[in-house]
Amino acid sequence: MSSEGADLQRLAELLGGRGLEGPGDDAALLRSPGDILLTMDPLVEGVHFETGTEVRRIAHKLLHRNLSDLAAMGARPRAILGSFVFSKNWDQQQRYALYEALARECRDLQVQWIGGDLASTKGTTVLTLCALGAPAGEAPIPRSGLRPGMHLHVTGPLGGSLASGRHLDFQARVELGVRLAQRHPPATMMDISDGLALDLSRMLAASGGLGARLVESRIPLHGSLEAALHEGEDYELLFALEDSQEEALSRDPAIPEVAKIVIGEVLAEPGILLDRGQGRIVELPDTGYEHEFS
Amino acid sequence: MSSEGADLQRLAELLGGRGLEGPGDDAALLRSPGDILLTMDPLVEGVHFETGTEVRRIAHKLLHRNLSDLAAMGARPRAILGSFVFSKNWDQQQRYALYEALARECRDLQVQWIGGDLASTKGTTVLTLCALGAPAGEAPIPRSGLRPGMHLHVTGPLGGSLASGRHLDFQARVELGVRLAQRHPPATMMDISDGLALDLSRMLAASGGLGARLVESRIPLHGSLEAALHEGEDYELLFALEDSQEEALSRDPAIPEVAKIVIGEVLAEPGILLDRGQGRIVELPDTGYEHEFS
Repeated sequence: MSSEGADLQRLAELLGGRGLEGPGDDAALLRSPGDILLTMDPLVEGVHFETGTEVRRIAHKLLHRNLSDLAAMGARPRAILGSFVFSKNWDQQQRYALYEALARECRDLQVQWIGGDLASTKGTTVLTLCALGAPAGEAPIPRSGLRPGMHLHVTGPLGGSLASGRHLDFQARVELGVRLAQRHPPATMMDISDGLALDLSRMLAASGGLGARLVESRIPLHGSLEAALHEGEDYELLFALEDSQEEALSRDPAIPEVAKIVIGEVLAEPGILLDRGQGRIVELPDTGYEHEFS
Repeated sequence: MSSEGADLQRLAELLGGRGLEGPGDDAALLRSPGDILLTMDPLVEGVHFETGTEVRRIAHKLLHRNLSDLAAMGARPRAILGSFVFSKNWDQQQRYALYEALARECRDLQVQWIGGDLASTKGTTVLTLCALGAPAGEAPIPRSGLRPGMHLHVTGPLGGSLASGRHLDFQARVELGVRLAQRHPPATMMDISDGLALDLSRMLAASGGLGARLVESRIPLHGSLEAALHEGEDYELLFALEDSQEEALSRDPAIPEVAKIVIGEVLAEPGILLDRGQGRIVELPDTGYEHEFS
């Protein structure tokens, strides 16, 4: 047995005296942060990680799942708050390992831990972060803003994330998101968490109901094409550039080659077409991973 | 069966088109908000509410638990993000009722819903909010900053919150916190969530290890003294004023009479003494509600 107070004390030690409540005590204070971007995502035992997963990997995924949303806006992460609801299976050693792993990653990323809350449950563990960031370029990169003729890119190979266990170890594309925002500001950017087809369809819908044509041979793959299109948990960035931006991108040594590939283009007509080569073009269902409720 | 997409759509409708992802899509954007205060607290089924509690009351407690932390800083709430992890027992009607109740309360309070995420779990329901506010007075009111001789006040009667069900219906002292911060800025303020004894001991510890003397006959009670001291879930504000501030407070018609009562004073010597009258003084244990972990 141990109490919330002891855990809060351990967190305060790890976080260099800033304490779980942050500098503002009951709430954390951020002094004139300028424009800020906020996102909030949970990690649910049995959904986002299986019972028994190494705590270090749970901490990593929890953090990077949230950072990925900031990366998708072209934002640099600055601070996080956490709310941790632990099942009875988490003993003190595991809880402290979680705090330590998060503190280590936050230090490396220069992300400040500014507050949060702890609780226990008879149910399963739910770990939630709220992450704050600042736009790295002139403005945040929205999800909407596509226009017909724009070129589509992704920052890395897609698919097979769940089967390979990569969904626990992926690196949110924070540096690349920042670099794109600063050097080749995309009209639109989002992270691929629910599969290329569903996330692209959301981007097209947010831009007023446009369509797209993807070229199968140009989609970088880790797993099967099917997994890339419909499985999710890739956390690569999907972004769109004007044709006029392509030359500068292709010559930029700071951008990895995979992100220079044009995987498709935006069309005026709704729907996502897949060009399978040799004249075969199919229309994709816009399905991917979605939580099903009862 | 229904999907996350349908729920997100319903939330977008309720929130007047702002959408669950907020104006910034993958993350919510706040443009140059000035100093901001942030807090994040979960509501856990079986801990903070029992299975079967009316959804409207769950929504209310979830929101007000978070607003109470902002009130304790003398801050006016501005925006919230939510992360809702639903058990299989929550059907669509209940989920939508939660969104509707939150949207209604947010509208009334002029609090903007700016983003969040939904998931489902085989375990119990965990609803988490992150609330943002702005200091209403010249500066946020910290938890530390007590000095010997200061007077202690509370904003309302304490105790019996759990037994009476008031823990589901309490009003966070937002307006009174703002009024105090603007008109009678306390040196120190916090909300009483874990019992007067434990929360006061935290305030004394945060101020460098001071003590206090409470006068039993002056503590406003809803339930038993024991419940007021050690039970928690009252969400009244505990605050400290200089002697020189008392006269203005006592003459201010905008402050309720209960908040004008001096319930005790700060001492240089650590420990909390309770003056029970007729010369009987006892030392209080600093115990209250804390989550016990395994």
